[in-house]
Amino acid sequence: MTSKLTEAAKGVYIIAATPFTDDGALDLQSVDTLTDFYIRCGVDGFTLLGMMGEAHKLTAEESIEVVKRVIARSGGRPVIVGVSHAGLENVRRLSHEAMVAGAAGVMVAPPAGLKGDDGLYNYYAQVFAALGPAIPVVYQDYPQATGVYLSPAVFERLVDDFRQLVMLKHEDAPGLAKLSRIREGESKPGRRRVAILVGNGGLYLPQELRRGADGAMTGFAYPEMLVQVCALFAAGKAEEAEDLFDAYLPLVRHEVQPAIGLALRKEVLFRRGAIRSPRQRAPGSSLTATDRAELEAMIVRLERRLAAAGRAHRLAAE
Amino acid sequence: MTSKLTEAAKGVYIIAATPFTDDGALDLQSVDTLTDFYIRCGVDGFTLLGMMGEAHKLTAEESIEVVKRVIARSGGRPVIVGVSHAGLENVRRLSHEAMVAGAAGVMVAPPAGLKGDDGLYNYYAQVFAALGPAIPVVYQDYPQATGVYLSPAVFERLVDDFRQLVMLKHEDAPGLAKLSRIREGESKPGRRRVAILVGNGGLYLPQELRRGADGAMTGFAYPEMLVQVCALFAAGKAEEAEDLFDAYLPLVRHEVQPAIGLALRKEVLFRRGAIRSPRQRAPGSSLTATDRAELEAMIVRLERRLAAAGRAHRLAAE
Amino acid sequence: MTSKLTEAAKGVYIIAATPFTDDGALDLQSVDTLTDFYIRCGVDGFTLLGMMGEAHKLTAEESIEVVKRVIARSGGRPVIVGVSHAGLENVRRLSHEAMVAGAAGVMVAPPAGLKGDDGLYNYYAQVFAALGPAIPVVYQDYPQATGVYLSPAVFERLVDDFRQLVMLKHEDAPGLAKLSRIREGESKPGRRRVAILVGNGGLYLPQELRRGADGAMTGFAYPEMLVQVCALFAAGKAEEAEDLFDAYLPLVRHEVQPAIGLALRKEVLFRRGAIRSPRQRAPGSSLTATDRAELEAMIVRLERRLAAAGRAHRLAAE
Amino acid sequence: MTSKLTEAAKGVYIIAATPFTDDGALDLQSVDTLTDFYIRCGVDGFTLLGMMGEAHKLTAEESIEVVKRVIARSGGRPVIVGVSHAGLENVRRLSHEAMVAGAAGVMVAPPAGLKGDDGLYNYYAQVFAALGPAIPVVYQDYPQATGVYLSPAVFERLVDDFRQLVMLKHEDAPGLAKLSRIREGESKPGRRRVAILVGNGGLYLPQELRRGADGAMTGFAYPEMLVQVCALFAAGKAEEAEDLFDAYLPLVRHEVQPAIGLALRKEVLFRRGAIRSPRQRAPGSSLTATDRAELEAMIVRLERRLAAAGRAHRLAAE
Repeated sequence: MTSKLTEAAKGVYIIAATPFTDDGALDLQSVDTLTDFYIRCGVDGFTLLGMMGEAHKLTAEESIEVVKRVIARSGGRPVIVGVSHAGLENVRRLSHEAMVAGAAGVMVAPPAGLKGDDGLYNYYAQVFAALGPAIPVVYQDYPQATGVYLSPAVFERLVDDFRQLVMLKHEDAPGLAKLSRIREGESKPGRRRVAILVGNGGLYLPQELRRGADGAMTGFAYPEMLVQVCALFAAGKAEEAEDLFDAYLPLVRHEVQPAIGLALRKEVLFRRGAIRSPRQRAPGSSLTATDRAELEAMIVRLERRLAAAGRAHRLAAE
Repeated sequence: MTSKLTEAAKGVYIIAATPFTDDGALDLQSVDTLTDFYIRCGVDGFTLLGMMGEAHKLTAEESIEVVKRVIARSGGRPVIVGVSHAGLENVRRLSHEAMVAGAAGVMVAPPAGLKGDDGLYNYYAQVFAALGPAIPVVYQDYPQATGVYLSPAVFERLVDDFRQLVMLKHEDAPGLAKLSRIREGESKPGRRRVAILVGNGGLYLPQELRRGADGAMTGFAYPEMLVQVCALFAAGKAEEAEDLFDAYLPLVRHEVQPAIGLALRKEVLFRRGAIRSPRQRAPGSSLTATDRAELEAMIVRLERRLAAAGRAHRLAAE
Repeated sequence: MTSKLTEAAKGVYIIAATPFTDDGALDLQSVDTLTDFYIRCGVDGFTLLGMMGEAHKLTAEESIEVVKRVIARSGGRPVIVGVSHAGLENVRRLSHEAMVAGAAGVMVAPPAGLKGDDGLYNYYAQVFAALGPAIPVVYQDYPQATGVYLSPAVFERLVDDFRQLVMLKHEDAPGLAKLSRIREGESKPGRRRVAILVGNGGLYLPQELRRGADGAMTGFAYPEMLVQVCALFAAGKAEEAEDLFDAYLPLVRHEVQPAIGLALRKEVLFRRGAIRSPRQRAPGSSLTATDRAELEAMIVRLERRLAAAGRAHRLAAE
Repeated sequence: MTSKLTEAAKGVYIIAATPFTDDGALDLQSVDTLTDFYIRCGVDGFTLLGMMGEAHKLTAEESIEVVKRVIARSGGRPVIVGVSHAGLENVRRLSHEAMVAGAAGVMVAPPAGLKGDDGLYNYYAQVFAALGPAIPVVYQDYPQATGVYLSPAVFERLVDDFRQLVMLKHEDAPGLAKLSRIREGESKPGRRRVAILVGNGGLYLPQELRRGADGAMTGFAYPEMLVQVCALFAAGKAEEAEDLFDAYLPLVRHEVQPAIGLALRKEVLFRRGAIRSPRQRAPGSSLTATDRAELEAMIVRLERRLAAAGRAHRLAAE
């Protein structure tokens, strides 16, 4: 059981990969080692069953099993559970299951096909009515996948009207202007300041932190970079943070490739000892020998660069 | 238990609506009365858990419950179960559950994002490998929802290579040329002729029957029209069939409206006594007083026209 | 020179086809005969260079040539010219060219990619500023092509703020509820009532007229039906209007097919003597022998049905 | 007049920005200074009127004016002109205008809505037939904008059947596997090796060069980096090339942001003295004070890093 998510959340909420064995079974042992790996990397919390990754390939039973397993091992770190579903009743049911299992809050993306500012507002009004005031909610803003645009104006209406909305998972592209615009809007008397964690693989993390983001919610395979960058920013060392970020940027950029990105991410997690197999459940992408050699060369370059910067790159899993 | 689906399937496979009570619970009693209603209308088979309708708002348990309930009451008529899922393992699992429950076959739509003729072929090759040769498969071709185009060339490769592919659910738009093209391609020595049932609410049913379709797989709220049109065509009375079709065309056209169409369909089924409530599970569309008056006026016009044509319009549920 | 478009516009504004010779040249002689044909059918006005049809295959010179040719022959009937363009400066330039040539107003669709209610409002505010108060504007609401949803709330803001916005070309799908909603909103004190003409091939024309539409703006190849249906409605003979509409509905439905619809429309216009060739500029769809026989059979059925109804179907071009 | 484009093309073909004055007029003087700037940066050729940028906001007259202006100042470097258009006749006409003006070849993207491998092949077969064998053609593969996927199999059919297809502008995402796959396919006896230049802002340029790309066709505001990276690779200094690339990567990544990217690019070109105004023609994005400060900080970081690497960063326009 973790304490509930609030507007004060910050830092790195890692989007956990879903490990499978080589024959495609859910690998609960790797769920454990991966959770431990993320904790060693210093993450502040977890996000499970998000839109990306392979959660949509799990059965309902496997999903809740993963949630429970991670919560049991999270050492009290908050766990957010993705509960987006085509039916509101299922959103409600999944949310209650997650909260009963000890989640800190739930994350809801709008269903494809919502139309207009009012259509979007009304959907979330229904969601909040169905969940009740006691379940903290994260708005997942990922229009590249949902096709639904969240305007700052609608977000502010939702923040003003529903106290359980405590966080924005920010993943629009381009999104820097929206982020600044939402933070500026919070100067309005009476408006709450909600937490904003950013996605998109962290590709614009330094810029987003400068514009008021509170941290990252993404699944980059070197979470310790995300953690250190956020920590350096919080300590007022923005330039140093960005230097570190830039060292990893070639890999960050490599991992944000559509389709193949997840295969690369799991390959790195596998090489780092965090999971027993890089396999995806079918249908999934896989790496060629060329892909693997290319990735390896990038890792060598990263380590060389970190070493040159006087920074010992340690495999967190060691 | 029904016998397995084959290339010889024909007639009307109704896409069954999913009935809920006024408070949103799955209404199994209405599943029974609706099944009986469809049978009285003369349907040849059933299609459950398709892409449209509200199957995606059911839990996994509810889904299989509906499947079993309809099969138990279908009087041996074949039941096809939609098993499309993001994960192949789930496609396999759902298919086996459906077949064990007595289904005649399964229906699989391609997942969004497949690219190119080869990408599509390879996906289905994986599906057929996962399901094995004993489960008859319907290809659901509905690019308006999936974004995946099926070319005649790819379909023919699949038909030639996988004997378990026995039916095309044809719902592309425009689709008349594709239908003709596939039928022409069957003149190639050694190629099987598969069954083709058409969707799109039946909007082009007479044209499609003339071009070689074997029937309809759709959910129009007056299934007896679909049944009679198919029967008249089979009896060589094409003009008479089209006369009957044209009488219903204003309602067919009304029901194919996106978003609101399902609300209209359930309202008609409710008025005809087939289900206890026209309610959809949230989030769903609902009818205004204007919508209802408009629908009622159309039904009055339909009955007047059928009466004028010397045809007694009987409510199947009476 | 025609008088300017106002909120009082009503009836049928035909979306004119663009005729080409068999070798693909713009066929100005057929532009003349087609214009005459439309006038004989009783249309109230013309819409040129809309999104559909083949205007986008014309050169800039050909486009303005067509506009001038139709205006010269329109007998004073108002001509609306589509001026949508990726650049605002081009929207302005095309609009002025059209007005100088004698157009009654211009039609503007939103560019793909506009986001949120405010994004849409701001775009049109820029358009209105660029065009000035003297050019009447039609909002073309066709989200199936633009991907941009117009909410009633945004439309009302635009109507309240910009007097030059005098008409809505209504073509959303589903759109009946939006139409009713906009008409209801006009009961607000001080709000103007704008003209609403409907598209979508006229597929829901009777329902839309009952809900407050003022007529049709579409290109159905039997414009006399659109004209008579609107006239009968205006004369309080709604049921008679719908009887007539229903007689043509099989063809209306046939012509709304994506991709192939335009080929069918030009084929009918060609058979009716309105244009010298049914050819489209490449790349375009063309009809097979099966398509042509199917169309011919539908026309025979239409004529039989009209004759049975005691209505002499006259080819307007005769 | 430049010599015609061949399969041997390589290096950097810069996608030229379109400069406007502060009041939105085409700025031909800046076209000149920008062309000079690009040449000082070392580009091997130019690409004009591509899909991105603001070419679609030009009038037809302005477009050809820009083409002539750049060709006149290009010093014999090859100029490729984008000629994609909804009408094939316009593709033909624009291509001939471009070639008469001295272009080295034309670039054609598939129109949205093409379906299936055969649909794509047939479209280009029509294009090649319309252009004749004398005009070199670049296939612009940018599915993020067109929605049309090019499979390696279709590209190979086109290469095998049409000698005038000499280059692939590669911009799919993810695209690394496709690039490798096409290069591997060229080992087939008798198949030509065509040039491949890569886009996507150069985000994966080192990886793409290692996989067989011949250079870049993109508009990054520091073209000298693209030029040097290509040159170092050609000289066998891949690691050094990648070091240089990585120094610019934060800016490369910043500039690939949708919507705002072009504003950033023009701002940099303006700061570097290449154009007189960073203004876009309406409707366009613009930069806030925050955006500008952020960009400036990135440039400072870049210069610091280049200096640290012992590399004097010279403003090419100085």
